[in-house]
Formats: sequence, C-alpha cells, structure tokens
Amino acid sequence: MMRHRFRWFAQLRFPLSACPVGFLLMLAGCISADAPRAEDSLVDAYRGDADRLIEAALADSTLYDRLAFFTDTFGPRFSGTAALERAIDWLLVEMEADGLENVAGEQVMVPRWVRGQESLTLLEPRVADMQILGLGGSVGTGVPGITAEVLVVKSFDDLEERSAEARGRIVLFNVPFTTYGETVQYRTSGSVAAARHGAVAGLVRSIGPESMYTPHTGVMRYEDDVERIPHAAVTIEDAMMMQRMQDRGQRVRVRLQMGAQTLPDAESRNVVAELPGTEIPHEVVIMGGHIDSWDVGTGAMDDAGGCLAAWEAVMIMKEMGMAPRRTIRVVCWTNEENGLRGATTYAEEHAHEVEDIVLAIESDSGVFDPIGYGFGGTDEAFSIVARIGSLLESIDAGEIRRGGGGADIGPLMERGVPGMGLIVDGSRYFNYHHTHADMVDKLDPHELNKCVAAMAVMSWVVANMEDKLPRPAHEA
Amino acid sequence: MMRHRFRWFAQLRFPLSACPVGFLLMLAGCISADAPRAEDSLVDAYRGDADRLIEAALADSTLYDRLAFFTDTFGPRFSGTAALERAIDWLLVEMEADGLENVAGEQVMVPRWVRGQESLTLLEPRVADMQILGLGGSVGTGVPGITAEVLVVKSFDDLEERSAEARGRIVLFNVPFTTYGETVQYRTSGSVAAARHGAVAGLVRSIGPESMYTPHTGVMRYEDDVERIPHAAVTIEDAMMMQRMQDRGQRVRVRLQMGAQTLPDAESRNVVAELPGTEIPHEVVIMGGHIDSWDVGTGAMDDAGGCLAAWEAVMIMKEMGMAPRRTIRVVCWTNEENGLRGATTYAEEHAHEVEDIVLAIESDSGVFDPIGYGFGGTDEAFSIVARIGSLLESIDAGEIRRGGGGADIGPLMERGVPGMGLIVDGSRYFNYHHTHADMVDKLDPHELNKCVAAMAVMSWVVANMEDKLPRPAHEA
Repeated sequence: MMRHRFRWFAQLRFPLSACPVGFLLMLAGCISADAPRAEDSLVDAYRGDADRLIEAALADSTLYDRLAFFTDTFGPRFSGTAALERAIDWLLVEMEADGLENVAGEQVMVPRWVRGQESLTLLEPRVADMQILGLGGSVGTGVPGITAEVLVVKSFDDLEERSAEARGRIVLFNVPFTTYGETVQYRTSGSVAAARHGAVAGLVRSIGPESMYTPHTGVMRYEDDVERIPHAAVTIEDAMMMQRMQDRGQRVRVRLQMGAQTLPDAESRNVVAELPGTEIPHEVVIMGGHIDSWDVGTGAMDDAGGCLAAWEAVMIMKEMGMAPRRTIRVVCWTNEENGLRGATTYAEEHAHEVEDIVLAIESDSGVFDPIGYGFGGTDEAFSIVARIGSLLESIDAGEIRRGGGGADIGPLMERGVPGMGLIVDGSRYFNYHHTHADMVDKLDPHELNKCVAAMAVMSWVVANMEDKLPRPAHEA
Repeated sequence: MMRHRFRWFAQLRFPLSACPVGFLLMLAGCISADAPRAEDSLVDAYRGDADRLIEAALADSTLYDRLAFFTDTFGPRFSGTAALERAIDWLLVEMEADGLENVAGEQVMVPRWVRGQESLTLLEPRVADMQILGLGGSVGTGVPGITAEVLVVKSFDDLEERSAEARGRIVLFNVPFTTYGETVQYRTSGSVAAARHGAVAGLVRSIGPESMYTPHTGVMRYEDDVERIPHAAVTIEDAMMMQRMQDRGQRVRVRLQMGAQTLPDAESRNVVAELPGTEIPHEVVIMGGHIDSWDVGTGAMDDAGGCLAAWEAVMIMKEMGMAPRRTIRVVCWTNEENGLRGATTYAEEHAHEVEDIVLAIESDSGVFDPIGYGFGGTDEAFSIVARIGSLLESIDAGEIRRGGGGADIGPLMERGVPGMGLIVDGSRYFNYHHTHADMVDKLDPHELNKCVAAMAVMSWVVANMEDKLPRPAHEA
C-alpha cells in the first residue's frame, strides 16, 4: 500500500527533503486520517492498478491527435450519411489494427432525415436574413415557405393563455436556458404544442446558455393526433429581438423556408471491439458513447470524444499487458441523436446476454474535466462503485452520484443492467452542443486524458473484482 | 464642498448613526487624507455638477430601450444602404424632437461595397461548407469561384519562408488573437502580402479571442502595385482545422466564391446636434461615435451605443437645465467602418473652426463598463483632464491614460484638436466585433448609463471651465 502512497507523493514534484517539517506532519496526519480506507480491501486491491492506469492515461499524447484527425477528416457523422459509414469503416480497421478482438459493425437501420435548404427571413418591421437550424425530424415548408406573423411566448402556459392569438401564426418559444432537461422540452415538443393552438409553424430559442449568434439543432417529435408543422431553432439573439419587437408593439412577420424531409431508413452500424476476459469472458463490462453526430460541427464532444476515450481506455490496459478477468467491450452506438436506433437495436439483439452485462458505462456529456459518475443501479451496487470512485480521487474524478446513465445505455438499463454516465465539468458543453462550433479545438488534451483514466479505472475494477456488481433481486 | 462629500456618504445606503465608531474615524481619516484634492479648485468647482450628472445618468431607464429600438428596427447600417439613411432620418427627427439645436445631416459621399453571395467549400480532404465573411473592399472571385490548394501560414514571416509554396495557392493566415492592433494587420494587409507571393486569394482567421464558429468581417486594403485578389475571413475553428490538416500532411483544397463588388460612391450624412453654449458658443466640445456599422449584426456596440450615449449625455444636461458656457456638439459620423469618409469630410469641412474645437471625445470601443479615457494632447492638457477624471471616481471611470482617441476624431486630432476615447472593460468586445452577434442583448443598461455619466461629466467640465484646454504652442 505504501508504494502507491509514495507514488502520490511523487506527483508533488518536489523532494520531501525540501518540505517544512510542519507540512510533513500534516501529511502524516492525512495518512493516519486515511486509515479507515486502508481497510477497504476492494479499494486497496486495485489501488496499484488504478494508479498505473491513471499514469498511463495522463502520459498519453496521441488521443487528442487521433480525435482531431477523426473529426477533421470524417466531419459530421449524421445518421444515414456516407460520412458516418466512412468513419465507422475507419474505426473498424483501426480497432482491428490496434489488436482488439471481435471487432465488428453490427447492422442497424437508422432514420434518414435531410435538412435541405432552409432560411428564415424577417419581413417586418424590417427585412433581414436570420440564421436558423431546422430541428431533426421536422417536416419542410414546401418551396414557397410559410409567411406569417410571429407570436412570441415565454412558456407552454403563456401559449395557453395566448391561444387565441396563435392561430395562423408562427409561434416562437423564447425560453431562457436554465438546465438542458428543463429547457429542451420546447425544442422537442414545441411544434406539437404550437400546432394544438392552430399555429402554422414553430420556432424555438436555441437551447444553450450563451450565444455568439449560434443556432443549435436537435431532435423534435410529433404526435399522431396533431398536425405536423415545421419546427426550427433561431439564435438566442433573434429570439430576444423578436420578443423586444413584440413587447414594444412592433408587428413581427417572417417567411420560413425549410427543405427538410425524411427519406427511407438507411443502413448503419454499431461498432463493437473487445478486450477479452481471461477468466469469465462471457461476463462483460460495456463502455462507450455514440459515433453519430448532428450534421453541423464535427461532433467532437458529442460524441466522438466519448467513443475514442473508451477505446483508448482499453488500449492502455492492453499496452500494459493488463488482461481483465471479464471482457471489456467498447461499443460505439449509432444514431443516438435522432432515433436512438443503435441503442435500442443493440439492447434487443444482445438481450440474450443481458444477465452477463455486468455494467454499462457511457460518456456522452463531453470529454471535459471529469468529476465522477452518475450511477443507476441498486444501493448495494452504488456503494461498491462509490468505493471504486475513491481510486480516482488523485485526479478529482471520484465523485459518484446517485442516478445517471446515458441515452445509449438506457435500453440496457431498462433491462436491469447497472449503468453509469461520466460526469464532467459542464460549464461549456451546452454552449457548443448541436452547433457548428462542436469541434475539437474546444477540448483540452489533459482533460480528455483524465476522462480516459476515469473510464479505464472504473471498467478495470468492475471487470476484475471477485463478484459481479449486484442487481435488483428480481433481475438476478 | 462638504455637501458633495455627504452626497458620497449617502450612496453608502445606511445611516451614519449605524456606523461603528472605527469606521467613522476611518472616513474622517480619508477626508483628511483627501485634503490636498480639496485645494484643486477645478475639481471642487465641478464636483456638484458631476455628481448630479452621474446621478441622473444612472437613474435613466430609457436609453437602453432606445438603443434596442434603434438597432432592432433599423438593423445593420452599412455605408451606402437605405437602412443607414433611414436610421439617420430617424436620428435627425428624434434629436430635433428632443429640443437639441442646429440638428443637421451633413452630406458625405461614402464607398458602396456589396458582399453579394459568398461561400467557401472544403473539397479535400472532405467536402464541407465553411462559413466565411468576405472582407470589406475585397474584389469578388467571379462566378466559377477560385479553386485552389490552401497554404496555411502563421505570420508574414512564415509566408516569406514558404514563398515558393504560395504561388497559385490560397494563403490562409492562421494567427491567434493577441491584441486587436497586433492581429488585425493580417485582415487589412493579408491579401496584399499573399498576392506578392503569387497567391490567388487570401483567407484570414477571424480577428477575435473566442469563437462559437463565428466569422468576423472588417475592412481590408489593396496597394496599387500589387494584384487585387479576393480576401475573406474564416472562423477560428476552420482556421485551426486547416492548420491541423496541413500539419498532418493532408492536402487542403477549397473553392472560394465571392460576389463582392464595389459600386459607385453613395450619399450619406454625418449627424450633428448641439446644446448651444451660453457664453462662448463658437467654442465647441465635440462628442460622439459612428452611426454606420458593418452589414452583419446590428452594430449595437459598434457603434450605435457610442452615438446614443453621447446624445443621452447632453439630454441629461438639458433636462436638468444645465446650459454649458461653450457649445457641446454631438456628432454621429458616417462610414467609419469602410472608408472613414465621415470623419475626413467632417474635418475638412469644419477646418475653419478647428481652433475652436476645444476637445473631441469618442466612444467606439463598446459601451461596456467604463474605466476612463485615453487622451491625446499636450502634457498640460493631460493634467487637466486627469483632474477632471477624478470626478468620475465614484463610478470607477476616472482613469485617464496617455494616448488615445478614436478613428472618427483622428482627422481632427491631426489638425491639433485634443482628443480622447472612452476606455471600457474590453474583455468581451472583440468576441462580438464585426460579427452577427453584435446585438443589444450583449450590453448592460447600467454599464451603458455609466458610459453616459462619464461622457456627460467630461464634456460638461471642459465646456464650462474658465480656459480652453491648452494645445501645442504651434497650434495656438
């Protein structure tokens, strides 16, 4: 045990002989205060492995470059595009070349939505082009577009109150960003609400905290009993401007043109690659993200980073000759953004092994500075992963919170698989989320490596510990 | 004098009776330490006026709304457009309605550059649209566009070293933002440098510190002895991406299409309006900004804010019945952005009164939180304006620095007029400068009012003090 403690001391980067005595006494105090943890046999058993994985991850200098190459070269990887399939081809070749096993692309049929040409023209009180991004799944407007007055509302309730004014109008939801979960409902469900009140199209203020005239796309949904009207996102700037115009009594009239359409489903693939288990290979820890992205930006943080970090995490083990008892399987799901077909297909086709999927880990909140994980599973399992989290304290990534997971592992979790999502510093993610600005320059190589470390340590320990992570009794 | 000091105490917003004795003693200490200033008759004479002006400016609740109305309703005010002239018409009517005198639009012929359709398409290593903004004054590419390989360089020196590679290429200057003055030379002079080395077009990384895939436009210049090649700005993201592609040996090939052209000069106007002097009306303090903007965004910070703040500053005096000894003239120059014709024409046509222009004040760095002024003039004059600056200490806007002015007052300063430019917190200005994001939502009403206060106090004191601000002997 002391060996690892001394390793930690080594990271202070100054000789102990240079320390004031008081500081050494303080350190000694820490060690003795730590004593209860020393009795955690799980943690102690894996501290050496964890420290080696962390050190190797942080010493890496190639992952950022690989992520940059991948996102620069293949660009946006939208479901149904040749670019996504070219990116997947490259992944399969490279994972094979890296010596991973059972590398495969598992076929998934995915929706094929195309944006087409789109524009929003302010006609009154002045003429101006306004930048928009149509929302994934939206119908188009037809060639002449839709010309109508805009009704700006501040919430669904506000729309209810102004229902009489909505008929024949384009309803703009101008809702300031609070949390993603709270605000995104206006993007997903805004057009349904607007159509219920007779609106001819929906607009939503882009879902993000800050803007440099930055539209954000994302998925939207229709309901069968409500007319399908077009739905697009405007910038925060233009949403606020139309609000001000309405508030001061200026009539706001626009023409919305969207060439959006949904084509027949297309073929795509979930990418899987394994570091096989040496003792219990049929038991699996799954770890990954989604390989598709929106059709703007290059999806560096959403979510090539998650996929490549998971891949790198197993490569570090492999390069150090660390062979896990259980299999660690990297999965890069397809079509998370506008259908979740990769995840649902994966869960269906792997239903036979769901009892053997010990844990599913996803990184899909951006590969910024990691804080820890959100865990979804039993209390007993939570207490175990929380203890594993303590192995990440040296990089401040050990905070394990109750609740969490990820869209791609959701269908597995519904089948009883314990799941966890990497939690990172989220202060910048939603500035770039689903925008042209989601590119690799926003990411930091060291933070990316810390994500790798966090994923490597968690997956390694769960793949190696004596017992499977416990599940609810009725699932066992 | 004590009356003013008690006014300052009043701003503490708690009764003196509630103060601990020690705090009162500390205040007493300050007063005694301040005693030398008490002997500055200039400062003391105007402290009451300054405090009243500051109080009135900060109590204002209409200026932000007026600025929002103006920028929302007239939009971008690019030289040669009907929108600029409509905005000027409105200004003239409103200034007249506000009771200002000698309100006039003084004719100026301005360049008329039109952007036209423009696009940059990445052809290798993959196909993608990249957002650009052509630079003001650039020639177009002709309809088929220019298709060429890109050479990315990091500086003019780097271009010299790679001269042999530049011929027939599109040269991209990928220069990270340091200061505006240092970096902007690649926007203004990049195409000339590129053409000298045989390049067929120039691209420049947008001049700004941060980006959310945000192109920045701005003016560029040709030289008579160098071929005129098109010049456009790419986003920071795409500049960095093309750099990475080149660094890893990927061939970068693009097609640049720009419909830019320069049409015959058009008519515009400088807007002037006065608060006439009661005693020496022919002596004038000039104060303002520029009313034109780029053709993207709505030019709220660059520079409608400067114009409307100057206007508001004199309105505060007028509404309080404060009539200056010398005339205070608000000037909103036209065509600062791509020609400076408003400023040069103004200086030529007002050359006869240049001896009577006591001071020219410009706000053109955004109406963010004001810090003080940069002053260009004699040492003697500097010491006077620095003392006047002390009247702005209560709003932390009293720092007077050596050197400064503004583009619009430059031609007057060349003729010997002392000039000063409002200095503000510049941390955000260049994020939005010359982009679609320069809209009123980035500004804060209180900060805007502080700018008004700073402009009102400085202009008021210089317009009222006994002697004219001194000039260099040879100018007198």
